[in-house]
Amino acid sequence: MIATHIQTLHGYTPGEQPQIPGLIKLNTNENPHPPSPKVAEALRAFDPARLRLYPDPVCKAVRERIAEIHGCPVANVFAGNGSDEILALASRAFVNADETIGFFDPSYSLYPVLADIHNVRQNPKKLNPDFSWQVPATCHDALFYLANPNAPTSLRASTETVAALCKNASGVVLIDEAYADFARGNCMALATAPDNTNTLVMRTLSKSFSLAGLRFGYCVGPAPLIHALYKIKDSYNVNMLTATLALAALNDLPHMRANVSKIIATRERLAHALRERGFTMPDSETNFLFARPPDGKAVQLLQHLRDRKILVRHFDFPATREHIRITVGTDAEADALLAVL
Amino acid sequence: MIATHIQTLHGYTPGEQPQIPGLIKLNTNENPHPPSPKVAEALRAFDPARLRLYPDPVCKAVRERIAEIHGCPVANVFAGNGSDEILALASRAFVNADETIGFFDPSYSLYPVLADIHNVRQNPKKLNPDFSWQVPATCHDALFYLANPNAPTSLRASTETVAALCKNASGVVLIDEAYADFARGNCMALATAPDNTNTLVMRTLSKSFSLAGLRFGYCVGPAPLIHALYKIKDSYNVNMLTATLALAALNDLPHMRANVSKIIATRERLAHALRERGFTMPDSETNFLFARPPDGKAVQLLQHLRDRKILVRHFDFPATREHIRITVGTDAEADALLAVL
Repeated sequence: MIATHIQTLHGYTPGEQPQIPGLIKLNTNENPHPPSPKVAEALRAFDPARLRLYPDPVCKAVRERIAEIHGCPVANVFAGNGSDEILALASRAFVNADETIGFFDPSYSLYPVLADIHNVRQNPKKLNPDFSWQVPATCHDALFYLANPNAPTSLRASTETVAALCKNASGVVLIDEAYADFARGNCMALATAPDNTNTLVMRTLSKSFSLAGLRFGYCVGPAPLIHALYKIKDSYNVNMLTATLALAALNDLPHMRANVSKIIATRERLAHALRERGFTMPDSETNFLFARPPDGKAVQLLQHLRDRKILVRHFDFPATREHIRITVGTDAEADALLAVL
Repeated sequence: MIATHIQTLHGYTPGEQPQIPGLIKLNTNENPHPPSPKVAEALRAFDPARLRLYPDPVCKAVRERIAEIHGCPVANVFAGNGSDEILALASRAFVNADETIGFFDPSYSLYPVLADIHNVRQNPKKLNPDFSWQVPATCHDALFYLANPNAPTSLRASTETVAALCKNASGVVLIDEAYADFARGNCMALATAPDNTNTLVMRTLSKSFSLAGLRFGYCVGPAPLIHALYKIKDSYNVNMLTATLALAALNDLPHMRANVSKIIATRERLAHALRERGFTMPDSETNFLFARPPDGKAVQLLQHLRDRKILVRHFDFPATREHIRITVGTDAEADALLAVL
């Protein structure tokens, strides 16, 4: 009664969301600072009687604002129920049953799960030992998920490198820029370039805008690809409150940027202090650090921190086994972490 | 670059949501009355700072309340981003590539679109000329979508009839009870029966709870089927505000029931007045009337009403061509409609 490939499927495991008083939660890359006061205002001003009506199925007002931010037509913008929805829709819109989905390994651990759910072959490409990657001479995957900056490694490939990958790819390249606001550069220009036919750049309000609970993500790219996503999405994928508050957040970029600056300052201070304690890690362009303790005993460290009510994340794969991923929280949370190390 | 079957796909067309001042909107089966005051309270009490965190990926608190309402374990409840998401997930969880999706014709016009999106064969079964249906002796569809009460016909099949369909079906039967609160009976007992292995009953907060803008739907059924849906859903499909307000609405069933009673009273009055004017229609168990004007010229009537700022819906298929679907609004809206006929 359950489809054959779903029976054997291992679903994605989101980071824990335990309700423990006093817990310092550095495991799911949430923003420690509150969202824009304009979001709070929009929430207070919202008339709940409006909820009796269906939302705009194509989320026009928010997409107009996104188009304005990135200087592109509205037809080049898709709005989703979090960027997870867009990742899943892309697998169904762009990949035939006999084609493959590519991604680097390690990267966002949802990508292989999405290939399994869509029942197509995965084509992982191993990162170098230092977590960098070379541009493949050819890329025949119908869809390539590229997290840039990458998770959990925290590293960003240059726009030139990514452009070369997109040029060599015969399929769609979806650049997942969940962490771009914390980075020194991004690839949005590849998405909005007039001659772009295969590149989508995706953003989320979950990290830099402090709105993980709201579920709003979007992607920018060629109108025919955006149109294909619209054809197959659920009729009203973005609810009315999310659309309203997302617009408020996107109308206050200075607040987001100020929060990002605070997080970057904390990140650099924490990275420096950890390195002083013998940890090694790539230079993060995200809101987390991918840190290897001096002895490489990441699981023991995870448990040590957990016992002291500090939650970080560990990925038990060969390339990531000796590292922990630490979300950059507040300065006080960084101090608490350093105090127990 | 776009998957072959998506290129030729005709997506679903939601009812219009025009922003015309003074418009009487009777085209998308929205509830004319506001949601529970408890929803407004929960909205006012919601601290927007919480939105920085991810929502509960499995929506536990709301599912516990739903389990309590229907007297079943939480493991038998799935919560979705509107019932549209659940319909789409069911096609992917329960239907292999060489299997079929069944449904009656006419019914909810999204069902054939979902089969096309999932790239499997549709198996529509024609309703009788009076929009009733016989129990098929066998049903080999991997998934059967059964809207009960049905849209756009407004008729309900008895629980016994539906039980016989489920018994004869070798696949999953998903009973879409979007309109059940307006009906004289429902099939929830089939979903919660201990020996049930193939039947899911789905509800939504969009109609009877006046929360179409919120996007919350759920289904109840055998734990293995619910588990399969959870394996393939997006990680955080229900956002934090929707979960919070859905719980508030589900904690105030008397408000929902009072609104439903008002709508049923208006429905009966409107049906009587339309019949006096020579319209014919089935006895509705929904919040809409499926009415045939005396001359069967539905398109002309649609335009006549539209010119007078009253929006109703028309489905241009052979079996529905001579009918219009009129959402039951307020008493004042019913009077305005009758005045222009």
